[in-house]
Order: sequence, then structure tokens, then C-alpha cells
Amino acid sequence: MKEYNKVTSKIVEKIKKILKNENLLIYQDEENLKSYSNDESGGEYYAHMPELVIKPETKEQISEIVKLCNEENIPITPRGAGSGLAGANIPIYGGIVISLERLNKIIEIDAKNLVAVVEPGVVTNDLCRIVSEKGLYYAGYPMSVETSFIGGNVATNAGGSKVIKYGNTGHHILGLEVVMPDGEIIEYGGKRRKDSSGYNLLHLFIGSEGTLGIFTKIYVNLIPQPGKVVDLLVPFESIEKAIENVAPLMRETKVLPSAIEFIDKESIKYTSKYTGMKLPYQDEVESYLIIQYEGNNLREIEDIYEKSGLTLQKNGAKDVFIADNRTNSEKIWRMRRNWLESLKAIDPYVPTGDVVVPTSKIPEIMAYINEVSKEYKVDIPVAGHAGDGNLHPAPLKPSKVSPEEWKELSEEILGKIAIKAAKMGGAISGEHGIGFIKKELLKQTKEKEYTRMKEIKKILDPNNIMNPGKLF
Amino acid sequence: MKEYNKVTSKIVEKIKKILKNENLLIYQDEENLKSYSNDESGGEYYAHMPELVIKPETKEQISEIVKLCNEENIPITPRGAGSGLAGANIPIYGGIVISLERLNKIIEIDAKNLVAVVEPGVVTNDLCRIVSEKGLYYAGYPMSVETSFIGGNVATNAGGSKVIKYGNTGHHILGLEVVMPDGEIIEYGGKRRKDSSGYNLLHLFIGSEGTLGIFTKIYVNLIPQPGKVVDLLVPFESIEKAIENVAPLMRETKVLPSAIEFIDKESIKYTSKYTGMKLPYQDEVESYLIIQYEGNNLREIEDIYEKSGLTLQKNGAKDVFIADNRTNSEKIWRMRRNWLESLKAIDPYVPTGDVVVPTSKIPEIMAYINEVSKEYKVDIPVAGHAGDGNLHPAPLKPSKVSPEEWKELSEEILGKIAIKAAKMGGAISGEHGIGFIKKELLKQTKEKEYTRMKEIKKILDPNNIMNPGKLF
Repeated sequence: MKEYNKVTSKIVEKIKKILKNENLLIYQDEENLKSYSNDESGGEYYAHMPELVIKPETKEQISEIVKLCNEENIPITPRGAGSGLAGANIPIYGGIVISLERLNKIIEIDAKNLVAVVEPGVVTNDLCRIVSEKGLYYAGYPMSVETSFIGGNVATNAGGSKVIKYGNTGHHILGLEVVMPDGEIIEYGGKRRKDSSGYNLLHLFIGSEGTLGIFTKIYVNLIPQPGKVVDLLVPFESIEKAIENVAPLMRETKVLPSAIEFIDKESIKYTSKYTGMKLPYQDEVESYLIIQYEGNNLREIEDIYEKSGLTLQKNGAKDVFIADNRTNSEKIWRMRRNWLESLKAIDPYVPTGDVVVPTSKIPEIMAYINEVSKEYKVDIPVAGHAGDGNLHPAPLKPSKVSPEEWKELSEEILGKIAIKAAKMGGAISGEHGIGFIKKELLKQTKEKEYTRMKEIKKILDPNNIMNPGKLF
Repeated sequence: MKEYNKVTSKIVEKIKKILKNENLLIYQDEENLKSYSNDESGGEYYAHMPELVIKPETKEQISEIVKLCNEENIPITPRGAGSGLAGANIPIYGGIVISLERLNKIIEIDAKNLVAVVEPGVVTNDLCRIVSEKGLYYAGYPMSVETSFIGGNVATNAGGSKVIKYGNTGHHILGLEVVMPDGEIIEYGGKRRKDSSGYNLLHLFIGSEGTLGIFTKIYVNLIPQPGKVVDLLVPFESIEKAIENVAPLMRETKVLPSAIEFIDKESIKYTSKYTGMKLPYQDEVESYLIIQYEGNNLREIEDIYEKSGLTLQKNGAKDVFIADNRTNSEKIWRMRRNWLESLKAIDPYVPTGDVVVPTSKIPEIMAYINEVSKEYKVDIPVAGHAGDGNLHPAPLKPSKVSPEEWKELSEEILGKIAIKAAKMGGAISGEHGIGFIKKELLKQTKEKEYTRMKEIKKILDPNNIMNPGKLF
């Protein structure tokens, strides 16, 4: 392991000069530093204290500070909203946390080019709301939209429920301005919608989890806001039946749903308790699909859900419940959206697994999760994105297991499931990223690629100061 | 410049042993070698003879031959259909051309996962046709679909007319199997639809123009085949009026067209002569938009074109002609599809420029092209993709200019336009790539990125044997 230098008071003085504002800096204030020591990845045992937190307001400040850290051998951990689930913004070597919370401006909504230009600290929800006021739509919508920053979404190539129709965050990013590990500021892409001039470095930064640079500006693709939305709740007797419906539904209706979510019996049990809601057929079925369609107008949406409902019933759905207004839609989504919260009510540090498999393999990985659950005698409710094969198994700590034991045990359980998913043609993370929690698994499951990734990291960050200890 | 070794008869013998079939190899047969010396980029003056052409049938053969070339310091030029427009598959240092024409199997249409697994030598049109028989759709449809290979589409990150709705080729590629410059075979991605585990190396290969490895297997995303298509031909008095309509049309109708093509007066003049067709208002207007919508059924498509027609007329269209059957659609597209052919009828080596700008900047770049046209006294008809700002200016050789003078002059003209486009926030290529023709422009317009690209190339191909002289 590389040795880093400490953040001395001399360094702090230099940084103060760059920031020109004492309020943009947290130093020697344990309590305040502590809120930058962790993310949502799970237990306190993952936390690590930064030596210094700064909240720069301009890319020039970031560039100067990065240059300084590069010269002085001080590790940098870029941080968005702290809603990550893989520990990517935990400063495991101490050093400086650069929080992007003050780079939170929506610089421009360019309705002519259908592009929004934003800073990384913009809450994704705010972006969605503001563009919708202009009849536009940001389609890279992660489930954590209410808290997460757009910068973090880009850094993890976040997914969410709408990937089946729109692709993950990376599909909606036209450009990035990046402060490189040597402090140079480079713009990759921009307002143009195509570019076949040279290697696509833009996509190297998307999903790089802060290890290759710090985003300071993001060009986001916008599309017209869909006119109407309808949601379907569809109970199935078995997981196989639910999954078997996914592809034929699209082929037979000739329509791409904007979401096909999946929730299992185990999850329903906990979420029902938490929300006080009961779903129809709750005690009789093994799983539900929540299917969402977007359409141009009421007539179109009626066409879609009628055809979709018939197809689903023909193919073995127990029933099809349709919500074509906001109140009913909210009810349908409440179970899915409160899934993690309802598990946290039982175990505040519940680790959320994140694996992806080819959609057709969902029943197989679900059967394996069930096996693991029995073997370890641990409940593992699962929810996820059936449309794209991305599942979240969430093992619940048995009360007699101590937090320290649980750290190891839960990592073992999730590791087993992740490796199995990779072997099925999937991957160990579909949307949360690797952070430091999954780095051994990355090496194990993408051996040949891993070597190349590491070489690229070394070229772009030779001193390994940019989010060290993550991915590698 | 690096010196390479020649393909000796000893090397040829070794390769024969690997291929085990004399028919998979062209050596010392000038006439046959000649057909691998050029692409569609323009004049004969760009051609260069390969020393050896091979047509391997398996990835293992490719891997062994690449290993051999890497050891023996022999340059490799991977080749698809030869329909490229930037010289990327011209073997400018001689050496070996590896033609992918025999790797032309559709390995699997996986209707459950909505993925096609294909070899690089599959003609894109064949793929489109075969998946459509199963009610599926490949949405990465370049204009050259009838000739080009899917492998070449991936290697250039080809665009085409449907980028506004579906994105360019890269958006539809889920995975690639690549023979690396050291001969190692690595699979990036696969049938999974999401992957946030480590750097996105997949997108590094998409658009790399054969400089980082040879694709041997491609995982292609499929979607449901749209039920209905309608095309609109819309004449406009001025280019500005045409372009001003693009964004409001999408916002006001709340529908993304599958294409918004653009053709100027100059182009109409030549294409009309070639096809014998006359468009309505042909002598009165400055440009046309061809707009295509895809819908689920007739009712939906009627809704769309009614709304769209009203919006366009309200916003200054001279008229709106609607084609909702195949015959009329063909007529509308004939002008656009025959654009290049009609120019080739005048000048068989007409160079097709390829620049991209933010959509709103089209009038500005068109005005500049007009200026250049006057300055050089050269006709420059322009067609392109208005929806994504990707234009093709095609300077026509004045009869008194010799082919040798024209090479320099046309490069100067297109270079000027490309640099201007880059300065407007665009790029010097939107879909054709850099090849060797535009490499100086790449260096000039993406200076900081260029350094990083070169470093990455050096790491992945330290001996620079994979398509040398391209991009850099």
C-alpha cells in the first residue's frame, strides 16, 4: 500500500488561500468531519474520518487544490450527496474530502438544443422538476432521485427503474468537464449529440467513481416530457412466471415499458408491515411486477394498457391492476419505493446488494439466493429491476449476530451471490458501483479487464491521489 | 515514424499453417490485393496496397495471427465492408489486412433477453431483416446499412438518421469480444443490460476504428419492432426556419421523431437531376426536412402526424406532405438516400465531409459553408441529420482542377469547415471517424484529449501494430 502524507496546518493554510472563505472548510472539528466519513453502504464499521473537508465553489479552486494534493501526495476523495451504496466516497486513507455540495447550479436549460448544463451538486430531483416545467424530461432517473446528486449518478453510472426504455445514466450524458488528477481541466463532449472523433473518453469517466477526476460541469440530454403515464401492478404465482412475461410483453405489445420492477414475497412481508399497506393476492403469490408505460396522450395510453393487460393475463398473470392517475400510481409504487426503508426499520445498516444478470437468468439467481438464505439461515428479501436483470438482495442481520460478525458474514453472503451472478453472464454491480467494498470481487470476476483498467488508472493518475483504494 | 517489418514468405508460411486453407489468403496477387487497398473515402490517391490479405474464420486464428504480428513487428489493418469514409481501413503502412468478411454469422437471436449475438462481418441490413422477422428491431441503423458490416458500424460508432431518438451505434452495443493487440481475447460486456463494475472499457473500443483490437463477437440490443411508420416532407423558405422548428416540434408534440433529416437547395438540384424526381416547391425553397415518426398503431401515428403537421405549419413550414404508406415513404426518402450517388454521378471521388454541431448552430455552419463555397468557387451541396446536428458538406471538383490538386484543395476546404464546426462546440466527425484523413484535425481540435487518447493507445498497443497511422 502506498504511503500518503498528512494534511498539515501548512497545507491547510495554502488551501484557505485558494478558497478565500473559511466557511468552505472543515478542519479539526470532529463532529462536522464525521458527517463526511461514511455513505449509505451500511454499517459504521465502514466509516473513516477525513483530515479535512472542503466545499469549493469553482472549478478553478478544485483545479488548484488537486494540483497541490498531487504535488504534496495527499489523497483526495470526491463526494456527492453521500447516498452511495458501495463506499466510494469514504475517505479510507484520510486526506481531503472534496464535497461538491456547493457546485449546485443549474447553469443553463438550453431548450433549443435539448440540453441541460448543470454542476455536479445539483439534486437529480431538482433537475427533473425544473426541466419538466419547460415540458422537458431527464430520462436517467435513479430510484434515489430525491437525495442523490447528478454528479454521483454519473460517477456510478446509476441505473434505476427506467433503464429498460432509456438506458442508464451514461446514456443521457453528452459531456463532462473534468478536473483531472494533475489539475488540468478538460471538457469531454458537450452540446453535440454525436462524436466519432477519437476514443470515447467520456464513457471512461462515467462510472469511474471519482478515481479518474472530479466532474465540474455536466451536459445532460433532455427529451420531450411524456404526456401520460400508467402503472400496472401484476401479481404472479411464481418468480419464473413473472420473469417469463418480460420479453414477450414487449414483443407482443410492440411497446417498451418505461419500467418493469420486481418485488418478491419476502420483501412484501416487510414492506407491508412498514407501510401498513396490503397488496391484492398478497398471501397467495410469490412475486409482483410493477410495469410503467409512458404515452403521448390518454387514447394512446389506453391502447397500451389494454393490450398489455390482455397479454399478461394470457401469459399467466394472476390479475392486472391498472393505475392511470397519480393517486393510484403512488399506491402501486409505494411498496417498491419504501422497500429499503422498511428493511432499515428492522436493521438500520442493512446492506443492499446489487447484482445484474441477463434478464432470463433472474429465476436462476433467485433460486440461488434462496439457497444461500437457507444455508446461512438469514432472510434475504429481494427487489429490483426485472426489465434489465438488476436485483438487490438485502440480507437482514439475525438478532443474535453482532455488528462485527455481521460485517464479515454479510460480505460473504453478498459476495457469493455476486460471483454467481457474474458467472451467469452478469456482473457484480449493475448500478451501485464497486467502491472499496467490492474491489476484491471486481478483480476476481473481471480478471483480464481489471489489468487494463488498472493500467489506464495509472496513466491518468500516476500518483494515485484521486480516490485511492476504490476499484483497485 | 516507426519502421515495420515486411511480410516475408516465411511469415506467409506461418500464417498458412494457422489458417489451414489457402483460400483464406491473398498474396502476390496484385489485382485481388488492390480491392483491399481503398475504401469509400474518395480518390485513388488515398489507396495503399497491402502485402497480404487474410480472411480468417475464427477468433482463434485472429488471435494467433495478431500474436505473430506483434512479435514480428508487422502492421495489421482490420477491415469490414470497406464502406468507410475516412480511410480507416486503408493499409497505409502495407502489412496485413485482416478482412472480417468470413466472420459473418448471426450466432444467436436471443428473444428472451432481446439480444442478438453476431460476428462483425454481418451486413447490418441482414441483421435488421432477420430480427424484424421475429418482431424485433435493431435501432442503430446507419444510412449505409445495405453495404456496411455491423463490425464497421461499431468501429466508427456510426450514426445515421435515427440518432435523435435512439442514439448512435454505441447505444445499442451491450458487449464486444475483442482480440487485443497482444492476441489476448477479452470479452467486454455481454447480455447484461447494466454494468457498474469498473471502468467502461466497452465504449473505449466502440469508435476506436480498429486501433485497439479486432472485434470477433458483438452483443446487440434489440427492441420491439415499431408497428407503424410515417414520413413527412416539409419544405422551408430558409435554412433558419427549418432548423428553428426542430426543438419546438419535439417539445410541442411531446414525441421524439425517429429521424429529422435535412437537405439543402444545392443538393436538391443535383439529386433531382439524378433521380428524375421533382419535389414540391423545389424552385421556391431553400431546404427540406424529412421527418419520420414510429408509432404503435395507425391511430397513434395519425395522432402524431396531425399534431406534428399543425405545429410545423404554425411555425413557418411552407407545407407538410405526409406519407403513411411504403410507396409514398420511398418517394420521400429517395431524394435523401440518393444524395451521395447523385453527387458521385458528377464526381466519382466526391469527398463526403462529416461535421457535427449543436443542432441550433446548423444555420451558422451552413452560412459558413456558403462563404467557403464562394471563396473557393466550389459547389458544396449539404445533406445531413438535422435532428442531431450532423452535416455532410460534399465539395464538387470543378472540372478544371486536376485530381492531385483536388486532393489538397478538398482537404483544405473540408478542414476549414471541420475546424469551424469544432469551434462552435461541435466536432470534426459525427459518424464517419478520423481514419488517417482527419488525424491532424483531431490533434488540433481536441488537443488535451488527444494526449490522453495517445497514452491509452500506447498502453493497449505498445508496439503500435494495430491499424497504425490512424487517429494518431
